[in-house]
Amino acid sequence: MAATTSSYSITMRLYTAPDHGVVGAVATAISEAGGIVMALDVAESSHERLVVDVTCSASDADHAALLRTAVDAVQGVEVHKVSDRTFLLHIGGKIEVSSKVPLRNRDDLSMAYTPGVGRVSKALAENPDDVWRLTAKGNSVAVVTDGSAVLGLGNIGPGAAMPVMEGKAALFKRFAGIDAWPICLASQDTDEIVRAVEMIAPGFGGINLEDIAAPRCFEIERRLRASLDIPVFHDDQHGTAIVVLAALTNALRVVKKDLAEVRIVVSGGGAAGTAIVSLLLAAGVKDIVVVDRAGALSADDEALSPAHRELAEATNPRRARGDLHAVLTGADVFIGVSAPGILKAEWIQDMADDAVVFALANPDPEVDPAEAEKYAAVVASGRSDYPNQINNVLAFPGVFRGLLDARAHEITTEMLLRAAEAIALVVKDDELNPNFIIPTVFHPDVPKAVAAAVRGADS
Amino acid sequence: MAATTSSYSITMRLYTAPDHGVVGAVATAISEAGGIVMALDVAESSHERLVVDVTCSASDADHAALLRTAVDAVQGVEVHKVSDRTFLLHIGGKIEVSSKVPLRNRDDLSMAYTPGVGRVSKALAENPDDVWRLTAKGNSVAVVTDGSAVLGLGNIGPGAAMPVMEGKAALFKRFAGIDAWPICLASQDTDEIVRAVEMIAPGFGGINLEDIAAPRCFEIERRLRASLDIPVFHDDQHGTAIVVLAALTNALRVVKKDLAEVRIVVSGGGAAGTAIVSLLLAAGVKDIVVVDRAGALSADDEALSPAHRELAEATNPRRARGDLHAVLTGADVFIGVSAPGILKAEWIQDMADDAVVFALANPDPEVDPAEAEKYAAVVASGRSDYPNQINNVLAFPGVFRGLLDARAHEITTEMLLRAAEAIALVVKDDELNPNFIIPTVFHPDVPKAVAAAVRGADS
Repeated sequence: MAATTSSYSITMRLYTAPDHGVVGAVATAISEAGGIVMALDVAESSHERLVVDVTCSASDADHAALLRTAVDAVQGVEVHKVSDRTFLLHIGGKIEVSSKVPLRNRDDLSMAYTPGVGRVSKALAENPDDVWRLTAKGNSVAVVTDGSAVLGLGNIGPGAAMPVMEGKAALFKRFAGIDAWPICLASQDTDEIVRAVEMIAPGFGGINLEDIAAPRCFEIERRLRASLDIPVFHDDQHGTAIVVLAALTNALRVVKKDLAEVRIVVSGGGAAGTAIVSLLLAAGVKDIVVVDRAGALSADDEALSPAHRELAEATNPRRARGDLHAVLTGADVFIGVSAPGILKAEWIQDMADDAVVFALANPDPEVDPAEAEKYAAVVASGRSDYPNQINNVLAFPGVFRGLLDARAHEITTEMLLRAAEAIALVVKDDELNPNFIIPTVFHPDVPKAVAAAVRGADS
Repeated sequence: MAATTSSYSITMRLYTAPDHGVVGAVATAISEAGGIVMALDVAESSHERLVVDVTCSASDADHAALLRTAVDAVQGVEVHKVSDRTFLLHIGGKIEVSSKVPLRNRDDLSMAYTPGVGRVSKALAENPDDVWRLTAKGNSVAVVTDGSAVLGLGNIGPGAAMPVMEGKAALFKRFAGIDAWPICLASQDTDEIVRAVEMIAPGFGGINLEDIAAPRCFEIERRLRASLDIPVFHDDQHGTAIVVLAALTNALRVVKKDLAEVRIVVSGGGAAGTAIVSLLLAAGVKDIVVVDRAGALSADDEALSPAHRELAEATNPRRARGDLHAVLTGADVFIGVSAPGILKAEWIQDMADDAVVFALANPDPEVDPAEAEKYAAVVASGRSDYPNQINNVLAFPGVFRGLLDARAHEITTEMLLRAAEAIALVVKDDELNPNFIIPTVFHPDVPKAVAAAVRGADS
């Protein structure tokens, strides 16, 4: 059974006989069913009964149901209500707007709002650049999605995407002090999305595109970068690429190989795969083969889509053809941003010595990291319950902090490379090992180091 | 000289001789020049000199400059630096985004963001209505402008409008706990504005249109109301209309006249005038004459624009023609939402007995309220330095609180009427008098009463 996780934790309200021994039996029942008791509070105690709130984590929804059944089976216990803690946390949303200025009395109002605000607006009409300094623009980012490629859930639409965009906004604040607001768009038409983002841009200092499906996301980003005077960043592409390059840099430090000499296989030619390839090439990698469902992408394949043709022309110098297993033979690095279970752990034996395997499909990776570890020198995944989690949270807060601090009008490849280097360097030589190639998301140095690198790249 | 105001307050940092008598001389100089000393802090004191921060309010920018000169002229005083307190307050913007959920550790992250958030999004894809309950949508409002009619400043564009929209967002939070975010649009094309608002609507529970020029604002509102499933409210129209109707209701209580029987002249046929007329008619007023620059609007005038024709056809039953002075003769009520100084105070003598005068042009009213008081029974204005301030802050927070609480899909005229009645009723019979027809914006009952009225109107 998979590890338990707080994201599947539940709180059960129990009515029990007024016998404290029963409470122990509940804890035992949960534990025997594979759950972990996180908290146990007696909410009421009387001669007739106890009311007990038990919070425990499960590995998934089915497991949570199983825990309930196990507790229900304990003699003298009635499960009154089960609350899902993740859903409780989301009630009413996860972000709010706060006023930074006092509004206690008429004096406060007359400075923050009319008539005083009129003088500020008049000054901005005369000196438009001051909008960065005298409004929220200078610290704010729009988190924009059309809901077409949300997590592993696919095209669930803008409303259902809201919890993810809000979570992102909360992370922006937590890790970089940035004020981000979700903009969930009611259209999946490229022209309409581009125009809507152009329209809302005046009030924001940056645009973070999120969970927009490929290939639409490429054109949207390209057009917005051309038309807007604020930086545009598609996190699913560039955030992932930055963290992958940082992790790869350190993985190669561990196995003592050179970025310019390794052979890399990238599984998945979508948004993330394309951006990873692009950044790896900019970092000096020479030999990358991209594999999609139909096999290796090669420039001499007439059947490719325009996006894949572009990708193929920039990669695969040896014109390798064949399926994943075929092109993996002799490769130094596997980077998967594709689908669960497509990499058989045994195939890793056919890779070069000291193979590096990044299995990043979410929530289920291309290969079970525990299996991959048997054959690879370094393994990373998107999962938080294994070492070496590749998590975009390492990149986007610091990237936008740096961009906003610099009042940057665009984001360059040079900035992305420096951000990756900054993340990699947070891991010191004496900390570096196969199970620690990338800092945890809570490492306090990461956002500052990334922001400084992005700012520096501008100068 | 006009009254001093905090919106024009400044802080002067002074270097003075180490003689505390000088400080007294500074206070006297400011006072003699018509300023009001609000605070006086000695920041440093040594044998060589004192550093003193004096904060004082002025009546306008010229007056502030005059105060500086007066202080500079005091023997032994050097003005080192003058800071404008309103501009200081706006540095970095007035609003921010906060996380409502803790993000201390991996457990918190796994519930607020991935993987836990995936279950919430999945649930929303299956039950889209839950987006009101499980995301910020249910408590959030977009404050949307194109920057075309900002305060009295006119068409200053979306960037320069930001301080006003942020102020509005801060007021939404302060008075009704609502999370509002400014959306300043980079286009003044009606079709583009409509489409942009439709596009961003999924993440918001309501749309507050703001400072959009007439007649464009009418079509934008009409089309958005038809296409969106969330309420759309143009504050410059309906917010103003609600507060005017509330104030008029109480003014007529004071002078003991009946809404159905009074003759009303409305000066200004723009966004506010049109909405006021529409709400007054819905409230039962029978005789309204609208006057614009060219005189009274009458349905038999062939030269009217389409918007003014519509207005004329709904009003002026007696087909009155002529200029403001002409149609004012015998009228019971003047409501000005037009331009400064267009109403001569003496003309009020030609109105009916116990005339009611609302001079709402901002920042300078149609007639000086102090002059109007000589002839009218009740006077109101938009100014905070006279009694009876007509201020939209009385309406919009409670209106949206009620709409969001009810998860309303639209806003009806019935709701607007009830909101006006609720504001009027906050003033009790024994409080009511010519100088107190409308509660102050800080009256704690107002937003709750308005919200309850709006909710009730829905049932």
